[in-house]
Amino acid sequence: MKTIPNTPPEIIRIPFDKMEKEFLRVLTKEGFTREKAKVCAQIFTENTLDGVATHGVNRFPRFIKYVKDGHIHIHAVPTKQHRAGSVEQWDGHLGPGILNALVCTERAIKLAQEYGIGCVGLRNTNHWMRGGTYAWKTAKAGFVFLGWTNTIANMPAWGAVDYHLGNNPFVIGVPYNDEAIVLDMAMSQFSYGTMEAHKLRGAQLSVPGGYDADGKLTTDPSAILKSKRALPIGYWKGSGLALLLDILATILSGGLPTAEISKHDVEYALSQVFIAIDISQLGSNSAIANTVNSILQDYKNSKTASGLQEVLYPGERVVRSRKENLKNGIPVDKIIWEGIQNL
Amino acid sequence: MKTIPNTPPEIIRIPFDKMEKEFLRVLTKEGFTREKAKVCAQIFTENTLDGVATHGVNRFPRFIKYVKDGHIHIHAVPTKQHRAGSVEQWDGHLGPGILNALVCTERAIKLAQEYGIGCVGLRNTNHWMRGGTYAWKTAKAGFVFLGWTNTIANMPAWGAVDYHLGNNPFVIGVPYNDEAIVLDMAMSQFSYGTMEAHKLRGAQLSVPGGYDADGKLTTDPSAILKSKRALPIGYWKGSGLALLLDILATILSGGLPTAEISKHDVEYALSQVFIAIDISQLGSNSAIANTVNSILQDYKNSKTASGLQEVLYPGERVVRSRKENLKNGIPVDKIIWEGIQNL
Repeated sequence: MKTIPNTPPEIIRIPFDKMEKEFLRVLTKEGFTREKAKVCAQIFTENTLDGVATHGVNRFPRFIKYVKDGHIHIHAVPTKQHRAGSVEQWDGHLGPGILNALVCTERAIKLAQEYGIGCVGLRNTNHWMRGGTYAWKTAKAGFVFLGWTNTIANMPAWGAVDYHLGNNPFVIGVPYNDEAIVLDMAMSQFSYGTMEAHKLRGAQLSVPGGYDADGKLTTDPSAILKSKRALPIGYWKGSGLALLLDILATILSGGLPTAEISKHDVEYALSQVFIAIDISQLGSNSAIANTVNSILQDYKNSKTASGLQEVLYPGERVVRSRKENLKNGIPVDKIIWEGIQNL
Repeated sequence: MKTIPNTPPEIIRIPFDKMEKEFLRVLTKEGFTREKAKVCAQIFTENTLDGVATHGVNRFPRFIKYVKDGHIHIHAVPTKQHRAGSVEQWDGHLGPGILNALVCTERAIKLAQEYGIGCVGLRNTNHWMRGGTYAWKTAKAGFVFLGWTNTIANMPAWGAVDYHLGNNPFVIGVPYNDEAIVLDMAMSQFSYGTMEAHKLRGAQLSVPGGYDADGKLTTDPSAILKSKRALPIGYWKGSGLALLLDILATILSGGLPTAEISKHDVEYALSQVFIAIDISQLGSNSAIANTVNSILQDYKNSKTASGLQEVLYPGERVVRSRKENLKNGIPVDKIIWEGIQNL
């Protein structure tokens, strides 16, 4: 883990192609085949382009470290272990999470084309980086996506002080014109990365994000980082949802639950679920598009709270980041970028 | 709507059979066939038995009013409108929500038996009362359940002050020994019923549940009931999830979204989704049971915050309520019970 500097990061902007080439260079050096390196480099770059640097450029050094440490097996190829109609179980053999997740996304789509709905459970995989990646891909292909992953234990259950739950991101994607509506939400109110960034800037969290040492809800990131009692979304509700998502990922994939993953020193051998639904079999594209448009139009007609210009739908900010960063270059913490150049 | 009294309700206990017979009497009087009356009476009683009186005895008078007012068509029978492999669309023809939801739950299970996973979208239906009902039923039959409903607009989007979202309950059920683990969560942190009950008792909410007139987060139920700015779980996250659940329910069922439902004076013609997965095709019952048991065991080993005895899993309280209330009678607000006796 890199040391947290005492000042906010200096941000530089890197063009898409340059960033992708840099990732490609490092991945090739680490022994990835050209084809696999290209796919991983592209996804890491796209995640950063879309404004999710935490699961793009910022995470890349740790990804490489896990490769070097042998937690990620770069030549592993996921295999289908079991099929029951439109439900399949795959084993990721500890390969790169991005590559495994892309294969299972494709399979879920294929099953949906054949059966209307398809479900793939993936075990022994690694961090998929941004869950939204697979929702965007599925939704832009015209399918509904529902998916989730378990994680190493990093969140206390509601009423508890130690970690027995993962923050298990849950992801939904729906086609929307040529884009998509994509919700990509972890079960913790804030990630530790976000809380550390706020602490660094001396800023309070916008809403309570956990407990202080006295067990009081607080917006002070330092107090939460110290108590380690980050808050599940909706308190008991997000806690319950995190538990159920872990149980489902484990059962559907035949893989490891958070409790077993947490016996490792670092996070690997995760369980994930990919569900696709072929909505083109349920109505004309234009009728469905009109429905989604009318719902979003009503939503955007919300009267905003004082000081706010508009309400955003899930994924709206991503589309804006993508456009802006394609034009102006992708913002990156200069220290992180230099670190990658030295890999 | 009945007037809220100035004192906390007097609670009496009614045996299961007596409550069920009373519902049966009223439903028969309203013209329900014997068979349909029996099913509805049983579900209303079971919901109350399980500790969810808000969607049992307390809601029964409004259900009868909607029947009288013609919003619920008691002789309607749901029909299959479209099938695409393992995905079906049904029309509820404004029949009783409980009966429509039970039919679609059965269909999802049948499709899961045939295809591994089954998905049913149901349109033009009415309030299903407790979403957990269908998850318990599915899970006790050995299947995983995922389901949700949209509602009339009753929650502001994150950043908004007026209602463009429903609180769209999301429900998951997993088999667990002879019982089930069932999460049944609305997207609002607290229901208006809960906030009204707190106000009545002069109690603060346990966590912030919305905004006061100055736009500050508050635990004061009176302030939230006045501002009407109830909080989505996890702030922007629950707001986004509510929007996506509405979009999905609408697309998958071919029914009405919250925006259209909200043009009615009262809530009817809802859209719902029922997904079942046949996990018996993924492994032996005992292996899956062992997995779920080991996850729950780890979860229950959580170190509790000071003053708490244990962490509960979703559905654990329901099982306790059920046992206690079967033995001691089902607790009911005396005024509500007398109201039902006068129907």
